[in-house]
Amino acid sequence: MSTTHVPRLILSRVREIQNDHRSGSLALARRAGQILAQWTRLPNRRADFHRQLALVCRALIAAQPQMAAIVNLCNAAQRAADRSPHADAARASVRAAVDGFLQTVQMAATEIAQTAATLISDRMTVATHSYSSAVRDALLTATAAGRKFRVAVTESRPLQEGVLLAKELASAGIPVTLGVDAAMALLLKEADLVLVGADAVTETFLLNKAGTFPAALLARRQGIPFYALAGSEKFAPRNYRLPPEIAKQPSEVLPRTPRSVEIRNLYFDETPLKLVTAIITEKGALDPKQAVRRLRKLSLHPALMIAGQGEEVPEE
Amino acid sequence: MSTTHVPRLILSRVREIQNDHRSGSLALARRAGQILAQWTRLPNRRADFHRQLALVCRALIAAQPQMAAIVNLCNAAQRAADRSPHADAARASVRAAVDGFLQTVQMAATEIAQTAATLISDRMTVATHSYSSAVRDALLTATAAGRKFRVAVTESRPLQEGVLLAKELASAGIPVTLGVDAAMALLLKEADLVLVGADAVTETFLLNKAGTFPAALLARRQGIPFYALAGSEKFAPRNYRLPPEIAKQPSEVLPRTPRSVEIRNLYFDETPLKLVTAIITEKGALDPKQAVRRLRKLSLHPALMIAGQGEEVPEE
Repeated sequence: MSTTHVPRLILSRVREIQNDHRSGSLALARRAGQILAQWTRLPNRRADFHRQLALVCRALIAAQPQMAAIVNLCNAAQRAADRSPHADAARASVRAAVDGFLQTVQMAATEIAQTAATLISDRMTVATHSYSSAVRDALLTATAAGRKFRVAVTESRPLQEGVLLAKELASAGIPVTLGVDAAMALLLKEADLVLVGADAVTETFLLNKAGTFPAALLARRQGIPFYALAGSEKFAPRNYRLPPEIAKQPSEVLPRTPRSVEIRNLYFDETPLKLVTAIITEKGALDPKQAVRRLRKLSLHPALMIAGQGEEVPEE
Repeated sequence: MSTTHVPRLILSRVREIQNDHRSGSLALARRAGQILAQWTRLPNRRADFHRQLALVCRALIAAQPQMAAIVNLCNAAQRAADRSPHADAARASVRAAVDGFLQTVQMAATEIAQTAATLISDRMTVATHSYSSAVRDALLTATAAGRKFRVAVTESRPLQEGVLLAKELASAGIPVTLGVDAAMALLLKEADLVLVGADAVTETFLLNKAGTFPAALLARRQGIPFYALAGSEKFAPRNYRLPPEIAKQPSEVLPRTPRSVEIRNLYFDETPLKLVTAIITEKGALDPKQAVRRLRKLSLHPALMIAGQGEEVPEE
């Protein structure tokens, strides 16, 4: 019995991540980190440690392969393990790497919210699409700083995360207007700037919730700035190829698929970096090309190379 | 008692048009024509005929002020009445003008479907947004001509007319893919051309269901042609100013408006004619500027000038 397995408990938690289509990418990365930490605390064969780590990491990446933060978390964990060939030391290294990664992400989020908040001044209308925790934090930070502004949000079908954002902003006393995604041009018309989050940043595009690309085109057409908020954890490793997205449940679009109609339920579109005015990072507001050069440091660990959504992971 | 009134029966039918947010603009113009014809058959004071006609026309225009076909229908009726100062002759003229208008529209629709169908060849993917009877007819005509192609449709929130189109096309044996409006970039990515309808064409823009403008920007970005299908009845008269759209019921967007959130439910966006490859008219495929020059012939009758949505019409 020399086959390496991933504990069933861990796999079932990975599946929860896979089936979670509502949480943002930082919340998912946080949970992925908890899963990795939990895995290090399980009894497992020392000889197997590094190989099993790679399997857990690949399962996590495959669960949400569009989320660069999970890829980077796993990459950090795998590289940390590499530095310690002995299982016990590697275990501690992985835990420290996960903790360090999540702390860095948290600090970056605070920096980003503060920098993005400075873009907002009194009487502005800020447009956004879907729900980004980074955008939410920026708006709340601007409000806390006494700025008086309005927000225009599109609902973000099929799951309508934009409605959740609208509710949270309204609860915080921010005047907020909500519209359907199709009415994006009409909502943006009165906006002074657009803020969006990011699930991944590659050398050429920003991957984010579908609707971001048309929003960027509209902003360009209208001559208003379009900012993406993304910490370095969102910059996909150099050699990580984002796999094609697997379509989600048609029932999210319509409760019943009409006869002979194919429903294509895709979540992410690619916004060319050329349409992005600046990326707001923990290092400040950077030109997108410059941001990619400065923040995309690591390449993917060889053990994680074949990770791709739908990959079979042997079960314990 | 010299006040001119519109018969209650007519007003109640006009209100049905006002509250109909699902029918296309040609279907609405047809019903507006029926209402005008019905009105000419009602007993009314001869001395009042012309003034009452203007009131009925203004009520019809105000009911759906974005629908150029209704404006042009009313304009034709009012001009016909002008040519006959006597009520009985005017009555017949109005009826003939309405009949003539609707017949012309019908013939134009057939021409447009045939011209647009020639744009579609085997193995193409045609993208469209919302429900346009002109686009539907073009697709059915292409199918009837033996063309094998696919259609990609966006649902068109809030009322999802795109779902209806998808169903109708599927019933006709056309392979059809349906997606949410936010996923427009993803659906268009595989398209070879975009066909949309029009509610109005002005000197500078195409008014159509919200989502059309981002679709045009995406098509331009992607280098695929973007065609609007519009008969001459869709070209707004020279001096008709499209009034600002009045927001529709928030309950169409969400059953319950979340506390402190303002829902803005707008139906129409403006696509600059510069983004339109050609307008397919009953005179063939025309460059948009040329189409406006050739097809926007009449100016609005002075009696209809003050028409605007929400205008009060004295009741009988």
